Amino acid sequence: MVYPETFTAFRSPSRENWRDFQKQEFKPKTLEDNDVDIKIECCGICASDVHKINGDWNSPDSIYPLAVGHEIVGKVVAVGPKVTSVKVGQRVGMGAQCKSCGTCDRCTSDNETYCKKQVETYSALHSDGTISQGGYSSHVRVNDFWVFPIPDALASTEVAPMLCAGITVFSPLVRNGAGPGKKVGIVGIGGLGHFGLMFSKALGAETWAISRTTAKKEDAVKLGADGFIATENENWNEEHDGTFDVIVCTANGTQGFDLSKYLSVLKVHGKFVFVGLAPGDGQKVSAFDLLGNGCFIGASHLGSRKEMLQMLDLAAEKGVKCWSELIPISVEGVKQGHARLFDKNGVRYRFVLTDYDKEFGQ
Amino acid sequence: MVYPETFTAFRSPSRENWRDFQKQEFKPKTLEDNDVDIKIECCGICASDVHKINGDWNSPDSIYPLAVGHEIVGKVVAVGPKVTSVKVGQRVGMGAQCKSCGTCDRCTSDNETYCKKQVETYSALHSDGTISQGGYSSHVRVNDFWVFPIPDALASTEVAPMLCAGITVFSPLVRNGAGPGKKVGIVGIGGLGHFGLMFSKALGAETWAISRTTAKKEDAVKLGADGFIATENENWNEEHDGTFDVIVCTANGTQGFDLSKYLSVLKVHGKFVFVGLAPGDGQKVSAFDLLGNGCFIGASHLGSRKEMLQMLDLAAEKGVKCWSELIPISVEGVKQGHARLFDKNGVRYRFVLTDYDKEFGQ
Repeated sequence: MVYPETFTAFRSPSRENWRDFQKQEFKPKTLEDNDVDIKIECCGICASDVHKINGDWNSPDSIYPLAVGHEIVGKVVAVGPKVTSVKVGQRVGMGAQCKSCGTCDRCTSDNETYCKKQVETYSALHSDGTISQGGYSSHVRVNDFWVFPIPDALASTEVAPMLCAGITVFSPLVRNGAGPGKKVGIVGIGGLGHFGLMFSKALGAETWAISRTTAKKEDAVKLGADGFIATENENWNEEHDGTFDVIVCTANGTQGFDLSKYLSVLKVHGKFVFVGLAPGDGQKVSAFDLLGNGCFIGASHLGSRKEMLQMLDLAAEKGVKCWSELIPISVEGVKQGHARLFDKNGVRYRFVLTDYDKEFGQ
Repeated sequence: MVYPETFTAFRSPSRENWRDFQKQEFKPKTLEDNDVDIKIECCGICASDVHKINGDWNSPDSIYPLAVGHEIVGKVVAVGPKVTSVKVGQRVGMGAQCKSCGTCDRCTSDNETYCKKQVETYSALHSDGTISQGGYSSHVRVNDFWVFPIPDALASTEVAPMLCAGITVFSPLVRNGAGPGKKVGIVGIGGLGHFGLMFSKALGAETWAISRTTAKKEDAVKLGADGFIATENENWNEEHDGTFDVIVCTANGTQGFDLSKYLSVLKVHGKFVFVGLAPGDGQKVSAFDLLGNGCFIGASHLGSRKEMLQMLDLAAEKGVKCWSELIPISVEGVKQGHARLFDKNGVRYRFVLTDYDKEFGQ
């Protein structure tokens, strides 16, 4: 073994003191035949990380101490005897899910991210009773189905956040037909939204950024948006009435959000898909708001392995890159990233923890 | 002309005195080249009729005095010079819409019931400035696109309610794939719901009735349901978790309605489609309720001409018949039908006004 039997992580100690990250060793799950050990090189900070440890999502199930982080890129350092998809030394990624049953209707129809027996990358129970730990760690041990080879063209720090934020918007885009001849709206320009704009454009759709103000207009254009809508203009919906095929909503706040206006700009049977998860008990929806165009409201959860590989290929081909702000991993670095996300102190558009070798050793 | 230049109708005089129907003559719209005059034989009473004249739907646009009724069957008594689709003497039907622009994207893609310039069968403005009047009338004058030949196998009083209630459930069923191998739920067993059960079954789907109590279980089975769910059983959803392809919701009340349970029984990307329009400002929907299976909530408005003809053929082929309670048309008859609908004094499952010849003459 070229690596320790225990892994090292920056972990949140409790819901009450969620920001008080501590550097700790932990014992990974039992190595199974299909497992891959990855020495982590970098990891994105996802808003889910914050929500999961601070209790925003009413997650009584969060199990502390907990290392979050599920936008992981690293090198394979060991593989179980049945692993054939990746090799030791290969650069790979993993996202927000680390297991599904593999046999149910959902798993066998490329819907494994909706499997009832899914295991999340952190704070979930492995079959051996250990609790899954995320990527604010020296290493991660994971079933090979959830390990994705990274194309050479993609830099690690620019691809890591695709493994959760990217796939979260990519899947509903492809599942709802984003492509040439389609008009797509991306609501909210943040970690998810900036990928939404880039991938919608890369897929060939006419892509519109929909934001509260014009503050991010310049960024939206750089990200590939063909058009920009500021919803602070009260009648913004009128000139777009009935024209969008699909809108992916990455906003995670619902204050002042008039859903009926967004629905009114959809075509007949157009789709409005939530991927941002606002805390709280939801939005009022009236059948009358849906009736004029027979539109649909939905939500989407991550994306299949097939879509993940398709996304990485498309990113390599079209040069899609996360706009990453790098933070060397350390107690202070993790604290700082979480504090800025929690306080909505504008990252543009994703934090990535780096310098793992410095902190955890070669 | 074998019929009068003015038509006769039972009309509601005002929102305040909506039940005080009066027998009145009115002048129909100007006869256009594509218009068809129908001498009405019978007409269903739709809940929309009540909602439209009593103000439930906050319809400040209802224009009195108003003859409602949009489930019309009768005989063609005259046609404009450009009408080729029907002939004088032929038995035909019309539904809830009497005009669309014919040229927009929606009209040219079999989505004419979502046309922005649509004209409803009653209380809408014709191009000549007259107000459209519905089927509680001796005759109706309508553009031939909205006139549907009735197959001989279907009795007039059994087919009339299909022209609104039937098509309202038929369209979302076919548009969302109801057929062999699919599991369909119909929420609410009333005028719409009883058609939902019959058409879902006729289309070949595994069909489940979903009702509050077991009171209508026997009817549901007679209507073709393969299974019955009573939602008063608090855990009704558990054994159906993740199994329905589509649910069409015909319920028009939302009291005690726990939408999240209905959503939980859908397959991945399954659809929950409202066709019952509950007064009020809607239901709370949280993205979390949609996330577990990536399901969609939508609504549907009537159905296209193509679907109408397909529905009538299917009804003739499979023997689908409305369960109609007949009421001879008269001031008293119209009052009685509306009073019983308004008071929810259980019709099973649709009132049809009949004996037009007796009341209006041959």
